Amino acid sequence: MARMDSTGRRTIGVGVIGAGWLGDVHARAWARLRHHYADLGVTPVFVAVADSVPAAREAAVSKHGFATAYDDWRDLLADPAVEAVSVTAPNALHQEIGVAVAQAGKHLWIEKPVGISAADAQAVADAVADAGVQGTVGFNYRAIPAMAKLRDLVAEGAIGAPTHARVRLLTDYAAHPLGTLTWRYSLASGGHGVLGDLASHAVDLTRYVLGDIESLVAQTAIFIAQRPTIVPGAMTYGHGLGDPDAPKGQVENEDYVQAMMRMQSGVLVALESSRVAVGEQNNYGIEVHGSQGLVEWDFRAPGELRLSTGTNYADQPSTRLLVGPGAGDHGRFQPGSSIPTSYDDTKVIELAGFVRSILSGQPEGPVLGDAVASAHALDAMVNSAAGAGWVTL
Amino acid sequence: MARMDSTGRRTIGVGVIGAGWLGDVHARAWARLRHHYADLGVTPVFVAVADSVPAAREAAVSKHGFATAYDDWRDLLADPAVEAVSVTAPNALHQEIGVAVAQAGKHLWIEKPVGISAADAQAVADAVADAGVQGTVGFNYRAIPAMAKLRDLVAEGAIGAPTHARVRLLTDYAAHPLGTLTWRYSLASGGHGVLGDLASHAVDLTRYVLGDIESLVAQTAIFIAQRPTIVPGAMTYGHGLGDPDAPKGQVENEDYVQAMMRMQSGVLVALESSRVAVGEQNNYGIEVHGSQGLVEWDFRAPGELRLSTGTNYADQPSTRLLVGPGAGDHGRFQPGSSIPTSYDDTKVIELAGFVRSILSGQPEGPVLGDAVASAHALDAMVNSAAGAGWVTL
Amino acid sequence: MARMDSTGRRTIGVGVIGAGWLGDVHARAWARLRHHYADLGVTPVFVAVADSVPAAREAAVSKHGFATAYDDWRDLLADPAVEAVSVTAPNALHQEIGVAVAQAGKHLWIEKPVGISAADAQAVADAVADAGVQGTVGFNYRAIPAMAKLRDLVAEGAIGAPTHARVRLLTDYAAHPLGTLTWRYSLASGGHGVLGDLASHAVDLTRYVLGDIESLVAQTAIFIAQRPTIVPGAMTYGHGLGDPDAPKGQVENEDYVQAMMRMQSGVLVALESSRVAVGEQNNYGIEVHGSQGLVEWDFRAPGELRLSTGTNYADQPSTRLLVGPGAGDHGRFQPGSSIPTSYDDTKVIELAGFVRSILSGQPEGPVLGDAVASAHALDAMVNSAAGAGWVTL
Amino acid sequence: MARMDSTGRRTIGVGVIGAGWLGDVHARAWARLRHHYADLGVTPVFVAVADSVPAAREAAVSKHGFATAYDDWRDLLADPAVEAVSVTAPNALHQEIGVAVAQAGKHLWIEKPVGISAADAQAVADAVADAGVQGTVGFNYRAIPAMAKLRDLVAEGAIGAPTHARVRLLTDYAAHPLGTLTWRYSLASGGHGVLGDLASHAVDLTRYVLGDIESLVAQTAIFIAQRPTIVPGAMTYGHGLGDPDAPKGQVENEDYVQAMMRMQSGVLVALESSRVAVGEQNNYGIEVHGSQGLVEWDFRAPGELRLSTGTNYADQPSTRLLVGPGAGDHGRFQPGSSIPTSYDDTKVIELAGFVRSILSGQPEGPVLGDAVASAHALDAMVNSAAGAGWVTL
Ligand SMILES: NC(=O)C1=CN([C@@H]2O[C@H](COP(=O)(O)OP(=O)(O)OC[C@H]3O[C@@H](n4cnc5c(N)ncnc54)[C@H](O)[C@@H]3O)[C@@H](O)[C@H]2O)C=CC1
Ligand SMILES: NC(=O)C1=CN([C@@H]2O[C@H](COP(=O)(O)OP(=O)(O)OC[C@H]3O[C@@H](n4cnc5c(N)ncnc54)[C@H](O)[C@@H]3O)[C@@H](O)[C@H]2O)C=CC1
Ligand SMILES: NC(=O)C1=CN([C@@H]2O[C@H](COP(=O)(O)OP(=O)(O)OC[C@H]3O[C@@H](n4cnc5c(N)ncnc54)[C@H](O)[C@@H]3O)[C@@H](O)[C@H]2O)C=CC1
Ligand SMILES: NC(=O)C1=CN([C@@H]2O[C@H](COP(=O)(O)OP(=O)(O)OC[C@H]3O[C@@H](n4cnc5c(N)ncnc54)[C@H](O)[C@@H]3O)[C@@H](O)[C@H]2O)C=CC1
Repeated sequence: MARMDSTGRRTIGVGVIGAGWLGDVHARAWARLRHHYADLGVTPVFVAVADSVPAAREAAVSKHGFATAYDDWRDLLADPAVEAVSVTAPNALHQEIGVAVAQAGKHLWIEKPVGISAADAQAVADAVADAGVQGTVGFNYRAIPAMAKLRDLVAEGAIGAPTHARVRLLTDYAAHPLGTLTWRYSLASGGHGVLGDLASHAVDLTRYVLGDIESLVAQTAIFIAQRPTIVPGAMTYGHGLGDPDAPKGQVENEDYVQAMMRMQSGVLVALESSRVAVGEQNNYGIEVHGSQGLVEWDFRAPGELRLSTGTNYADQPSTRLLVGPGAGDHGRFQPGSSIPTSYDDTKVIELAGFVRSILSGQPEGPVLGDAVASAHALDAMVNSAAGAGWVTL
Repeated sequence: MARMDSTGRRTIGVGVIGAGWLGDVHARAWARLRHHYADLGVTPVFVAVADSVPAAREAAVSKHGFATAYDDWRDLLADPAVEAVSVTAPNALHQEIGVAVAQAGKHLWIEKPVGISAADAQAVADAVADAGVQGTVGFNYRAIPAMAKLRDLVAEGAIGAPTHARVRLLTDYAAHPLGTLTWRYSLASGGHGVLGDLASHAVDLTRYVLGDIESLVAQTAIFIAQRPTIVPGAMTYGHGLGDPDAPKGQVENEDYVQAMMRMQSGVLVALESSRVAVGEQNNYGIEVHGSQGLVEWDFRAPGELRLSTGTNYADQPSTRLLVGPGAGDHGRFQPGSSIPTSYDDTKVIELAGFVRSILSGQPEGPVLGDAVASAHALDAMVNSAAGAGWVTL
Repeated sequence: MARMDSTGRRTIGVGVIGAGWLGDVHARAWARLRHHYADLGVTPVFVAVADSVPAAREAAVSKHGFATAYDDWRDLLADPAVEAVSVTAPNALHQEIGVAVAQAGKHLWIEKPVGISAADAQAVADAVADAGVQGTVGFNYRAIPAMAKLRDLVAEGAIGAPTHARVRLLTDYAAHPLGTLTWRYSLASGGHGVLGDLASHAVDLTRYVLGDIESLVAQTAIFIAQRPTIVPGAMTYGHGLGDPDAPKGQVENEDYVQAMMRMQSGVLVALESSRVAVGEQNNYGIEVHGSQGLVEWDFRAPGELRLSTGTNYADQPSTRLLVGPGAGDHGRFQPGSSIPTSYDDTKVIELAGFVRSILSGQPEGPVLGDAVASAHALDAMVNSAAGAGWVTL
Repeated sequence: MARMDSTGRRTIGVGVIGAGWLGDVHARAWARLRHHYADLGVTPVFVAVADSVPAAREAAVSKHGFATAYDDWRDLLADPAVEAVSVTAPNALHQEIGVAVAQAGKHLWIEKPVGISAADAQAVADAVADAGVQGTVGFNYRAIPAMAKLRDLVAEGAIGAPTHARVRLLTDYAAHPLGTLTWRYSLASGGHGVLGDLASHAVDLTRYVLGDIESLVAQTAIFIAQRPTIVPGAMTYGHGLGDPDAPKGQVENEDYVQAMMRMQSGVLVALESSRVAVGEQNNYGIEVHGSQGLVEWDFRAPGELRLSTGTNYADQPSTRLLVGPGAGDHGRFQPGSSIPTSYDDTKVIELAGFVRSILSGQPEGPVLGDAVASAHALDAMVNSAAGAGWVTL
């Protein structure tokens, strides 16, 4: 039942569950939707936020003007004014909350990786399908205009037939050995560490550009085996570091993964991801080779591509392409090429797809099936590294 | 007389004059202020927009919800609910509108270059001073977190005593010889072409980092001397190009400027700017050398610096520094280093300074004096290039 | 029996077998030895060259002044004035010639990969050991000053304990689908294609920096399955291309290999190599990560390293290090850092090691054992790709 | 009177005056001429070296086998077996030695900048013309294959009509404030410091690519005004540094120059050069803009160009071109693109031009007229910086 505001614009009642970093990013995206997608004719209404931490929900109200703030997300789902829900709570809650959102008949915008296993993601996917609501997953790298352009170039044959590729997400947020032993490092609450956190994006990007995976082999490592436990009342040190004298506890999940994949199309892909790569800050990227060229993207220069195209084959030069209004939705944000867009902008683009799917009833990727596919690949990597060698998906 | 909303937050009634690209950027910044500067306790109220083009003001209303839209900006200034005005109309109107805003007792956020000559900028500066309102100028490159970091590094002596520098703004928006002969290319309406448009930023950045200019010498060029005139009713071609068969008219203002400056501190600076640099898209940057190192910034990788610091002197390596929360206001937008922020984000940062100056009564740069100083340097470049050689400021 | 020239300098009688590109490179290196290593007190004497192609041996005589030129390399080995032999004939001849050189009691400087299988390399290694001569293998990437510096940095702990690495050799010499079906593409004469040709270097570099390999898994591809056969008397097209209308024949060996390796030290390594990577010209490099940093080298900027070192762990920047006289033998070629040295220079450095081993009787790497180790890894990759999965070395 | 060796090859008797770094580079180039230019049919004969320092001439004999070594260069010129002379002594001796070489009827290969003023260069040029010998000047940046390619691209119109350019030579060899007060820092022996040393190359490159200079304006600086004097018997510190407690003496010549030039063609050029640029190692390069594109070269990636060409005008991308056999004389050194050539290789290329001019009697640039033109520009920069403002050449 579509609702309208006084000027006849379609309203969407928004709820956000988990008002941390990404909860804030989602809320900002909702507020900015009209700036960049006025043509959708939609006015978001900030109905409710839910977070178990009072300060978090107060900050959300102050920044975004939510009408209500709940301690328990179940109360938010009971609110009939809420039509669409952002699920930006920690991974271990994705499954339970995601299923509940769908069962409440509300549209679901949920963060990756959608739980801590393929089973989790599948449960949410099933609930969404059963409820007939729309579901969008936060694989926001797809939304980067240069990435959309890269995919278009590959699809149009600009590099000929794809042959092989590399995808990497290397960063350092967990690189300090005194970083405390939070929930992130436990299997039960953090899942498979870098796999869900970063490699999930890598798998999704690969699938986005190159289709489905046939089989893979992986090796993983925990490079920082022990970290200081959180001692109630003890000192903490700069940058969220633990007490060097605190007792040490065991890290249970992966710091690093390296994999080789064979796509159903025959393309061979090397994947790598680390959360402890000292010296790397967001060294994320994809490089796709084909029979007539290559195309590459690097997150640290997010508005450009390296492209080699033509029929020289040998000594074919490569071009630095500063992507502009013609690439993805860049033109909705900046009128010219090479004017920087932000991480947050990509979430606005992702949201626009979610809203379009709500308006049209037609799913638009990344959908929950993509989360399931990504999670299956991650599970396969864990099995492979545990001794299974090549694993067929 | 500060006004409050129902929750006790300070409101600011906002007016925008000129609802083009930058008018939209300003409005978006006002909408996003709370997201990133909730601690200011300010709620902007979208009171009115003025634009002589109906479609422009309608779009502004649709995107931002302005309560009123005026054809004539004088009507907007007469609206008592308007407390602060964004002036984002074309350069030739800056002087008249800017003076009028101040005389109406409203705070002024005005785009660079503030008119088409130093006299224009001075008139607005005088009006602001006389009225006792606050005035902020759109020299937004100052607001980029990496630029704030660069300035801090120089000020802290990280490169020793500054010795020489280079600053450049090279781009290609006017590079096509069939780009039509719009107001941009006339002295009366467009002023000195690339000087006001881009070199104004270059001068401001130089002053921001290195203080005031003592003297300069310049050479300029019009590389595309003639362009197709706009023939009413005739065809136009892709990308805003004119009819190749249309009569050609004369370009009156500069495509390119090259200057050497001597700062009052003795630092020597080379400046260059072009609007017709084929192959360059936003090749903007500054490089500062000192007795113990160097620091550089490039707009195309806006979140990083190249820094060489230490006391090696010879063979001292340089470092790629991905700037993070510690740099300027980066941390208000993203929690980690090297997560991209956007051009629009810098306008939010600039706006926060404007709002702080309104709340505190203390001016915060870039103020109108900066626009005057920049405009004086531009006038000096024109004189120098016309035969005056070295010109003392 | 060391021989002396009239000024009392030790002479070494030089023979070169295979006067193609690398034969010429070896001869040039011999001529330049005195320029850069005068302190060795050695004067090379250009005794003889052998090549089955008359024009090749004539060119060698004209450029280098060899006293004699042989059609059959066996005659060269029978020449008692020859003390040291460069073997720069095609891979399929390495085993036979290499064994014969050693058996003739002459020192051996032989090009990689030393035959077309591990058995070939082992045969040559055994002959060298039995004869008590010195043997050096053309793994010249070791000799690059920046690579020596990289290895030193890793060994000194500049990046902490090594954790994972990437090594790549991607180029395009075989990328054109009309490149004719030469010996390179047959198993009997060309061995395993890109494996012997490029991946051999990759394996050697990895071992040089990170020690021995424990196990590996690989996938390979032939992306250009068929090529025009050489039709006697038919036209050839530009750049050594075949007749597009010529009958096509089957390519028998690998265009591309991708592998994951686990080193005995536990370090995880991703390796990739292609001879058909359109858009890549000599994209060769190695990137080593450790618990406290990283270090990278790229052949296309051969005189520099990217280094991140320190104990920041998170947000640790990386440095562009232009290597100079302190790195490897750079100072023997150029007095300052960042003055370019060449591919040929690295062969002079390699030769100096060979000559030192002759003078001292002490082997200096890369020796034949390194060729054997590399060849074993390549054989393992072939097996792995053929279905063996993880292969232990 | 051409002389022949026993095999009928033309011999050239070579003398080298000044056996320092460049003397060694010249001798190495002579030795390598046959390797890369066998088709010239020339065999150099190492007749004599002259250096006032015994160890320097002994090293030259040991490395290159000169038949004789002289203390006094006049004795070398009296040697009838010497046909061509490399003058690689310090700048202050160029004029006297250069004139004497020509007057002795010998061909002259002389290092830049050919003396310490335009008058010096003119004297040598006149002597060469009067004697009818050939004269080549060591402006070796012209010889770099990528530079030859850049010039060809500009000449062929690949970037349309040239409009403006930048040229820079920034390095740090004199950056340490404790570097001792050698002859380099005195006007009488070192001339105008960075002008002769580096800016001479900058001027020559500009002229090579863009033709003659019409007028210029410059500013200069001595950033390190005083340096420790050389105290006989006192300690020196690492890297050739002086005693920090030694008395300080005055630096008399320029550390830094910045200039704007207007070419006769109307092209506007910004030039910059420093010997004390902390953080820069051989940051040398040229960037040429034109009406349809741009082309750039950077010494630190000497085998590649950045090129933007086409008729897009706006948003025209740029290409990374790895130059290969088709560029200048690259193919004489390496068979493929992107295989590194060295600084020394460029001297072999320069020498080949000198030898061709000897064989043909036809001068081939860079000739002494180029040294005169460069020196005039440097003198003009000094005058301009001293207060003359714009100076017409
Ligand atoms: N798409 C992307 O690029 C990114 C996605 N993410 C995803 O976003 C999700 C959230 O991550 P962050 O925002 O970084 O974490 P965060 O820790 O900043 O925020 C999580 C919030 O959830 C709240 N929360 C915890 N338990 C709750 C409960 N039972 N009910 C309600 N609220 C609860 C916490 O109090 C906290 O405010 C994760 O799934 C993560 O994988 C995170 C970063 C980037
Ligand atoms: N800080 C920065 O980085 C930038 C600053 N600017 C500055 O912003 C200003 C506007 O530039 P753009 O937005 O690019 O131009 P634009 O042409 O997109 O927008 C100008 C708007 O002013 C309106 N206008 C014209 N005459 C008017 C009048 N008499 N009354 C009311 N509205 C009127 C036009 O209809 C148009 O909507 C310029 O001064 C420019 O220098 C522009 C781009 C970047
Ligand atoms: N270390 C490195 O970076 C490189 C090593 N190589 C290695 O060098 C070797 C030679 O390669 P290229 O010089 O590129 O090949 P090429 O084809 O240029 O030269 C081979 C030469 O051997 C001669 N030859 C063939 N059969 C002969 C015989 N029976 N007796 C005497 N001479 C014979 C040929 O006529 C030809 O002149 C190969 O093993 C290759 O793997 C090649 C390129 C780079
Ligand atoms: N083209 C280029 O890229 C370069 C050119 N040069 C030029 O090469 C020339 C030499 O420079 P470097 O080799 O770096 O200097 P250096 O100091 O290494 O060598 C100069 C040599 O000349 C000798 N010498 C001094 N007085 C002499 C005399 N009266 N008779 C004979 N020998 C005498 C010295 O003993 C010394 O061995 C300079 O003119 C310099 O501008 C230097 C470096 C690079």
